[in-house]
Amino acid sequence: MSIQHRIATSFAQQSMMTTLGASLVSADQGQCEIHAPILASSQQQHGFGHAGLTFSIGDSAAGYAALSAMPEGYEVLTSEIKINLLAPAQGELLVARGKVVKPGKRLVVVTAEVFARTDGKDTLIAILQGTMVPMAPR
Amino acid sequence: MSIQHRIATSFAQQSMMTTLGASLVSADQGQCEIHAPILASSQQQHGFGHAGLTFSIGDSAAGYAALSAMPEGYEVLTSEIKINLLAPAQGELLVARGKVVKPGKRLVVVTAEVFARTDGKDTLIAILQGTMVPMAPR
Amino acid sequence: MSIQHRIATSFAQQSMMTTLGASLVSADQGQCEIHAPILASSQQQHGFGHAGLTFSIGDSAAGYAALSAMPEGYEVLTSEIKINLLAPAQGELLVARGKVVKPGKRLVVVTAEVFARTDGKDTLIAILQGTMVPMAPR
Amino acid sequence: MSIQHRIATSFAQQSMMTTLGASLVSADQGQCEIHAPILASSQQQHGFGHAGLTFSIGDSAAGYAALSAMPEGYEVLTSEIKINLLAPAQGELLVARGKVVKPGKRLVVVTAEVFARTDGKDTLIAILQGTMVPMAPR
Repeated sequence: MSIQHRIATSFAQQSMMTTLGASLVSADQGQCEIHAPILASSQQQHGFGHAGLTFSIGDSAAGYAALSAMPEGYEVLTSEIKINLLAPAQGELLVARGKVVKPGKRLVVVTAEVFARTDGKDTLIAILQGTMVPMAPR
Repeated sequence: MSIQHRIATSFAQQSMMTTLGASLVSADQGQCEIHAPILASSQQQHGFGHAGLTFSIGDSAAGYAALSAMPEGYEVLTSEIKINLLAPAQGELLVARGKVVKPGKRLVVVTAEVFARTDGKDTLIAILQGTMVPMAPR
Repeated sequence: MSIQHRIATSFAQQSMMTTLGASLVSADQGQCEIHAPILASSQQQHGFGHAGLTFSIGDSAAGYAALSAMPEGYEVLTSEIKINLLAPAQGELLVARGKVVKPGKRLVVVTAEVFARTDGKDTLIAILQGTMVPMAPR
Repeated sequence: MSIQHRIATSFAQQSMMTTLGASLVSADQGQCEIHAPILASSQQQHGFGHAGLTFSIGDSAAGYAALSAMPEGYEVLTSEIKINLLAPAQGELLVARGKVVKPGKRLVVVTAEVFARTDGKDTLIAILQGTMVPMAPR
């Protein structure tokens, strides 16, 4: 099973991604892109996207970026991640791009950027920096 | 309008909290508690609660803890927050408790703990540390 | 060799701790306390203690807290750590207290608090949250 | 007084930078580079550069990057910053590069990278992500 197929299968099993309307755009060689609209059900009190939405797709993009660089059969867990929110989550679509900064057998250091797209223009709304833990197949 | 009432109103306007099934238990004097079940729609690929669920209620508990210590009319935004995930989110209920570590006019430093409750026993599954920004009434 | 002795030996080998005038007060059962004055050589541009001073003793207190809970022969590395600075580092002495929040074979989650002491009164000036990695003996 | 001159003056007043042997290489338009050797007095217990050294120059590079993009008379304080350590600090020279990700009147979001240089080859040893607070002239 190709890495893309494995990640697509894992992504489809995350009911949270379905709840948020998120879709996996690509995941390969230490990079991953996830898209999500700002659903009426994903908002904070002023009608912007909730920080939990931005975090969820940023974290998942970072995690699948890490997984895309691991051997067959591995899984990945978020150990820790930090998010700086830069601007309100508003627009037609949120675009999260994760990437591996430092691969490793025990720990994989990752970053992600999340953009809000309006009229084809992307505004950076959040950056994330964190650590993923590879889980070897049993 | 009491601070409890203001926070309850704000919480009710966060559609993300409704989507996650979260409820506001208390918010007063720099502390806040939020509960959420692990809905079938909030899970990751192994059936545990998604990191985005744990983050969302931890971040909201920290934010409302900050808001509970601000003057009338203020609002609060998350500037940045970091989460360390300690154990899988499994059990009957997640319990997030936020508190203000350092109040301030420009920045409020906060922490939060998230527990998973099973058979009346709470297991610490995540800790958060972050910064909230008070927004003065216009 | 007792754990206290091992940690004291390790601490004494950290030339940075000597440069900062830091002293190891205690390290036992997942807790550690380190003290440091604000030397004329450890300051930032306004004469307060440099953030690097506060970070260094907070990180070391967290790291030795982790080491104090590990089996004989292990060593510890900082994987990642975040610091929120709450107040200027001024006074007679800085006091850093680290503790283990979640022990583990692969990762140990830690926190630390740093206080500035003036006339016997301690003011919280920083909090840290991070991850230590145990290194097994070869 | 040019921004470069103001930053050079501020840097020279940081006794910690002198203690670490650090030098300011450049600071302009939201970017800053600082170099430091791994002095015998800046090490951890295995003879590598101490995390406090890597943090200090990374934090200062991020801070001066922020200051370089502010109006005359402003100063800057670190509010919070997170560091992920990727590899041991060993080699002839550490090179820290800070940059502004999101400028702002109240908060400036920054990142920094720290490299270890050996035989002209740079290895990424740490990444930082944080928040700087502009202090208006009184």
